[in-house]
Amino acid sequence: MADFLFHESDPFAPVNYAYEFEEILCQRRTGHQDLLIFSNPFFGRVLALDGVVQLTERDEHFYHEMLSQVALHAHPRPVDVLVIGGGDGGTVREVVKHKSISKVVLVELDREVVQASREYLPTLSCGFADPRVEIVEAEGSAFLARTTNKFDVIIIDSTDPVGPAASLFSSRFLSRACAALKPDGMFVAQTESLHFHRDFVREVQKKLAARFNLVALYTVPLATYAGNWWTFSIASKVHDPRRLRRKLRVPTKYYAADVHRHAFLPRSLYGKLMAEG
Amino acid sequence: MADFLFHESDPFAPVNYAYEFEEILCQRRTGHQDLLIFSNPFFGRVLALDGVVQLTERDEHFYHEMLSQVALHAHPRPVDVLVIGGGDGGTVREVVKHKSISKVVLVELDREVVQASREYLPTLSCGFADPRVEIVEAEGSAFLARTTNKFDVIIIDSTDPVGPAASLFSSRFLSRACAALKPDGMFVAQTESLHFHRDFVREVQKKLAARFNLVALYTVPLATYAGNWWTFSIASKVHDPRRLRRKLRVPTKYYAADVHRHAFLPRSLYGKLMAEG
Repeated sequence: MADFLFHESDPFAPVNYAYEFEEILCQRRTGHQDLLIFSNPFFGRVLALDGVVQLTERDEHFYHEMLSQVALHAHPRPVDVLVIGGGDGGTVREVVKHKSISKVVLVELDREVVQASREYLPTLSCGFADPRVEIVEAEGSAFLARTTNKFDVIIIDSTDPVGPAASLFSSRFLSRACAALKPDGMFVAQTESLHFHRDFVREVQKKLAARFNLVALYTVPLATYAGNWWTFSIASKVHDPRRLRRKLRVPTKYYAADVHRHAFLPRSLYGKLMAEG
Repeated sequence: MADFLFHESDPFAPVNYAYEFEEILCQRRTGHQDLLIFSNPFFGRVLALDGVVQLTERDEHFYHEMLSQVALHAHPRPVDVLVIGGGDGGTVREVVKHKSISKVVLVELDREVVQASREYLPTLSCGFADPRVEIVEAEGSAFLARTTNKFDVIIIDSTDPVGPAASLFSSRFLSRACAALKPDGMFVAQTESLHFHRDFVREVQKKLAARFNLVALYTVPLATYAGNWWTFSIASKVHDPRRLRRKLRVPTKYYAADVHRHAFLPRSLYGKLMAEG
């Protein structure tokens, strides 16, 4: 590797990654965090917040497709969608692929992430131009406190659950999210690595099971998040998240009908996870 | 993380990992490579060869169980097993769990890996004490050149396919491996990351398909190999590798009947991989 390395500094992971960088495109202190965008010969442009890589152009589709498309295909007719976090726009881009959706609200704490993505990450922020998208600058839990019975799907696209994002996994927040969903709504959140954060994953599963009829865990292997065996916790009031209710009619690189079914954790592994706590 | 970091130096990966180290237990230049064993607060003891992490005590079972147990459960009655590479002993430990097996030959180029593992990695090298195990110090391809029709299962537990291990994926080597198997034998090899080494994985799949009736690809998400979405290429003369022919009667932490079936790549992803070349 070259002499110029970006050394990740992730307090939530027991191994840190180092990336060669070619050029620093954007480096600033926002009102909330340190924001860095640099280019790498393999991964393309890379976004880091507070020293932790959030996405790379090369592999972000694994994360964003799986965070978004599973619920959007398990719900029979999503119309109103809420995304909390994800100011880079990758999740919004996935949501607006669906013509059935009439409204996407993006609630992002840090408007400078949205601005930087518009400027430097066009393949992620392209969805912001869609007229169905409304961007709200707010803290996710505060936003939900004034919302009930409104959304078909809520997607939590958070940073690691330390600092500002910790509140997005509290019991109070999850109760508010449940109340903000329509009677057949569906909730999904990124919930960290099954290698490194098993206690956290189990806690979220338990909290969701106390509030929703159907709760499940699915995963995707990611190249650039430490611990990589990435989990998504999905919870539903009526519709089984494992079952596809809609045909795949949107363009995807990784997500497919068999990938949807395949992504859910085998029963033996889920049983071991839940038995540890 | 602490001030004392082991920075991996992996020429085969576009991202390198950094591990905190507590203590260096063993550091030497063998006749073949640089060998390092250190301890880490999360991963336990870690073995690195030529600056690349080969295993950690904490997560090696994901790799060793999946490398070994899939073929050992898809074959109806494995008796003679050959392991090439894997001088640490993790694969041999998995093989000797099976009472049906009467002979395990380990062919390892570097005897000092075996010695260091005996001394510092007892949870891996424990299988060496089994009287059914024979350790041969040799280059894998040269060993196979003088072997025909002898093994039920051949397992390739190699380092990255650069340097000494490159020969283990040559057409000549794979032909020799096929000839060294009994008429219903099964072959399995670790074949790197589906994120980082897609061309390599596809090449091996094609070479195997030219020599075996049944070829498939299965994966496991690993925490400590760069690229993590780790592949195993399995090839069989008669028995379908996807189908379990034996009940799980050996102790495992990750491998299980549903994990076996689940590990094989969904058809859509396999199709995309093979269409890229």
